[in-house]
Amino acid sequence: MLVLVTYDVSTQDEGGKKRLRKVAKECVNYGQRVQNSVFECILDASQVLILKDKLLSIIDTEQDSLRFYYLGNNYTNKVEHFGVKEGYEAEGVLMV
Amino acid sequence: MLVLVTYDVSTQDEGGKKRLRKVAKECVNYGQRVQNSVFECILDASQVLILKDKLLSIIDTEQDSLRFYYLGNNYTNKVEHFGVKEGYEAEGVLMV
Repeated sequence: MLVLVTYDVSTQDEGGKKRLRKVAKECVNYGQRVQNSVFECILDASQVLILKDKLLSIIDTEQDSLRFYYLGNNYTNKVEHFGVKEGYEAEGVLMV
Repeated sequence: MLVLVTYDVSTQDEGGKKRLRKVAKECVNYGQRVQNSVFECILDASQVLILKDKLLSIIDTEQDSLRFYYLGNNYTNKVEHFGVKEGYEAEGVLMV
């Protein structure tokens, strides 16, 4: 299923930037980075638990916000994009 | 239905910040800002078209990235949150 992971962290300080990099690194093992703090991951139920566990060990729950959106298996028509797509190719192939 | 709007803009320059403020202003008419660039809007089919049209008139498609995710009407169990929830109350009541 498609799981959208959105992560809000202050990147003003070095710690926040580092956490964002770590979150991105975990997420792109399962999908792609589509915006600076938005990741689309293709996961089964057990992978959801594993990824969630990993991300919760990275984020600072006192400062950061992490949200998961479950879009199911038939997600092709549930996503629409406008504007630029470039920018995160180094960390994953972008979806058209 | 729940429509998730994610918006990636460079806020390094004043123009980007202004566009983000405008996008937020439009989205919170229909829902709430849950992260800096993530908005949850409750829309019917015609409102989707209206909001999309408004946002496309605000964003710079050469620089910004805008994505819509359609989560349907039964979305309560499709969203999960971790970490802080504060931060955007001035522009909308945050979902628990």
